[in-house]
Amino acid sequence: MKLFYSPASPYARKVRIVAMETGLHDRLEIVSVDTSNPNNGLADHNPLSKIPVLETEFGPLYDSPVICEYLDTLHAGEKLFPAEGTSRWKALRWQALADGLLDAALLIRYEQTQRPTERQYDGFIDKQKSKIAGALDYMNGNVRELEAPLTIGTIAVASALGYLNLRFADLAWHDTHSDLALWHKQFAARPSYVNTQVEG
Amino acid sequence: MKLFYSPASPYARKVRIVAMETGLHDRLEIVSVDTSNPNNGLADHNPLSKIPVLETEFGPLYDSPVICEYLDTLHAGEKLFPAEGTSRWKALRWQALADGLLDAALLIRYEQTQRPTERQYDGFIDKQKSKIAGALDYMNGNVRELEAPLTIGTIAVASALGYLNLRFADLAWHDTHSDLALWHKQFAARPSYVNTQVEG
Repeated sequence: MKLFYSPASPYARKVRIVAMETGLHDRLEIVSVDTSNPNNGLADHNPLSKIPVLETEFGPLYDSPVICEYLDTLHAGEKLFPAEGTSRWKALRWQALADGLLDAALLIRYEQTQRPTERQYDGFIDKQKSKIAGALDYMNGNVRELEAPLTIGTIAVASALGYLNLRFADLAWHDTHSDLALWHKQFAARPSYVNTQVEG
Repeated sequence: MKLFYSPASPYARKVRIVAMETGLHDRLEIVSVDTSNPNNGLADHNPLSKIPVLETEFGPLYDSPVICEYLDTLHAGEKLFPAEGTSRWKALRWQALADGLLDAALLIRYEQTQRPTERQYDGFIDKQKSKIAGALDYMNGNVRELEAPLTIGTIAVASALGYLNLRFADLAWHDTHSDLALWHKQFAARPSYVNTQVEG
């Protein structure tokens, strides 16, 4: 299966970690997409021109939660998406929170890198920053829920924090969220995390 | 269960249509949130301060795909989320496409209503418009997949198109996507759609 991605995309990283944790990574053909080029052909696979996209026997799949859940059906090990009950909804809530943090972070990133300085607006950036802060506070205060087992929720949170480290080092979230920082440090030792790390 | 929403939110409309189509609407207490007021208390329920949020016995649920899937487990009728197989992934792909169209539309809406004119950037708006156009073209070309049965995918597409009618009438998507317009017209006769309609 072809996975269209870009190395620094935190949503794509989530997918790649899922693939590694479930032993599926060898079945993925990783295709890097130049997301800065509007003629990169991505729209042929996803009308929204967004990565990640996974090509399957029944066509392309997006967005990252759909891809991750699909991959989770292709292996016989411990499931990252609990099948039902409270554990499922908690895992999906964590994923939604982490992905929502990333949505805010990426909006700031696009604001600062893809429009002229005079068109950037602090009010917008502040609003997104407050979402990031709210998510970090919640994660830090509820970090014990992330201890075990490994789920799509914990993987999503780790991917989101990795993106903050990559692009928002000045936030210094470690300093203000020490319990979360400790959790992240432990997670970051996993081979799936190490092997999907990119440098700024 | 309390559902925090705002009347014009297309993601919240998707949730309300799901609740009506599954006979659960009477179990929801609908709480309207003034999303323009940063002190609306929403952050107590969702650290990202976004609607919709559903309060459940195990805490708040977000975002809209998670809420919809949870509601779908609470009734004994035909499921809107197919349990497995290709039909599940196709339904989830349609939902992701429709929600992605909405993400682009709302980014334009925020750009035009929540920042000073001199901070608005046509390059950003054009990029989002091309995502909307790509999604509409795909929907129009694959509309037969939406014919039946009712799924979270078809509900999401209808909600997205309703939002374009509400906020982007100037797009006149009906004129350029006639097959999709015909499908939408039929869907729009459903009581769940009529009863969640808002006027601009």
